[in-house]
Amino acid sequence: MNETINLLKSHRSIRKYKSDPIPQEYVDEIITSAQMASSSSHVQAYSVIGVTDQEKKKELSILSGNQTYIADCPLFFVWCADLYRLQVACEMEKTEIVSGTMENFIVATADVTLAAQNAAIAAESLGLGIVYIGGIRNQSKEVTELLQLPKLVYPVFGMCLGFPDQEPSQRPRLQTNLIYHQEVYNTSNTTNELKIYNQITNEYYLERTKGKVNTNWSKQMSNKLQTASRKHLRKYLEDQGFGFSE
Amino acid sequence: MNETINLLKSHRSIRKYKSDPIPQEYVDEIITSAQMASSSSHVQAYSVIGVTDQEKKKELSILSGNQTYIADCPLFFVWCADLYRLQVACEMEKTEIVSGTMENFIVATADVTLAAQNAAIAAESLGLGIVYIGGIRNQSKEVTELLQLPKLVYPVFGMCLGFPDQEPSQRPRLQTNLIYHQEVYNTSNTTNELKIYNQITNEYYLERTKGKVNTNWSKQMSNKLQTASRKHLRKYLEDQGFGFSE
Repeated sequence: MNETINLLKSHRSIRKYKSDPIPQEYVDEIITSAQMASSSSHVQAYSVIGVTDQEKKKELSILSGNQTYIADCPLFFVWCADLYRLQVACEMEKTEIVSGTMENFIVATADVTLAAQNAAIAAESLGLGIVYIGGIRNQSKEVTELLQLPKLVYPVFGMCLGFPDQEPSQRPRLQTNLIYHQEVYNTSNTTNELKIYNQITNEYYLERTKGKVNTNWSKQMSNKLQTASRKHLRKYLEDQGFGFSE
Repeated sequence: MNETINLLKSHRSIRKYKSDPIPQEYVDEIITSAQMASSSSHVQAYSVIGVTDQEKKKELSILSGNQTYIADCPLFFVWCADLYRLQVACEMEKTEIVSGTMENFIVATADVTLAAQNAAIAAESLGLGIVYIGGIRNQSKEVTELLQLPKLVYPVFGMCLGFPDQEPSQRPRLQTNLIYHQEVYNTSNTTNELKIYNQITNEYYLERTKGKVNTNWSKQMSNKLQTASRKHLRKYLEDQGFGFSE
């Protein structure tokens, strides 16, 4: 359809990088692109920490569940939801920010994600590869200390960036009629469509692993979601000054 | 730098549209592009409801704080965080999803935002204009009923789409050194940089309104954030099956 849509449709996560550093002008373009994303009522409730220091990347790699590509990538971003700067803005006006609502938590979490996705696309348009790192939420408190995050800032996800040194295949997505609903949400076909998706993903995993991995989407999801993970988050977030009282 | 980065950097929210409908092949490309965004561990925890019915758009417009452009745009998307489909997947495996954690709430909220931003960029690359609608959270329960959303699905934001019939200016963003931190979060310059940003935004508003609106960023943020908004959200989300016990 056009160059941008081709780029969006060709996304795959990259976890192996060439050793080349990322030119500074690339970083500048990526951050500027991130900043031009939409933001709820212009609050711009996010920050990003760019980490290139090898020791620090290694520590973050360990804190994120030993994902070695964090140590290996030339640049690691930690994307943070951020109400701290808004608190300072309120103080400048001699008022106090309300940080204890779901609303402001959602706003900050959405804001950082919009910016991060713009950054991802800008990076990919420059020939870089990226992968999001949810593992940055494994040990939130330790990451917060390492990056000296003030109260009212929390790391939502990380992002490795680098010139790709692999060409992974694309994982098949859910059928569009499961994702896109016209006028009202349609639950009538969910189970049947998921059975079809299970066949599609089963074939994908068998082919990708030459018959070694015999799984499918619902098995994977069930394995992942039947137990609670990152159970520290609620308390950590409250300690950071976020609240969920209303 | 390239076509995609130029597109990202030229974003502005569009709230006035030509009457032309959006061709179906555009909608298909937009949704396909959305689906190719990254997703946490491939959970794909989001859905989008496309609304073209005039009566329904009008109702959503009223429910979102009388934002008339929702009724006026040819296509309105309601982007939903969605654990319902994952619940069905777990049931297929005779397990039960854990829906009561911050972790799964964050995952679903981030997932839908990644997909939505891809959709926004795809739409803009096709010459469409978009605006995000946080007002969809004004009356979550009523929106949920109108769109027949099942439990474990919640509307995070809306998005108007249409061919632009206005050329608004771009709002100046925060200085990059407030957003982007190297190695550690830097709080030492926040207040001084915000004073500069207040001057920049004050000039912007004066010029845009021909002297009528004399405000700045910290005043706007203080006005907005010193009182709690959308105070129903916590209870609504719990009623929808989300939980925040850990």
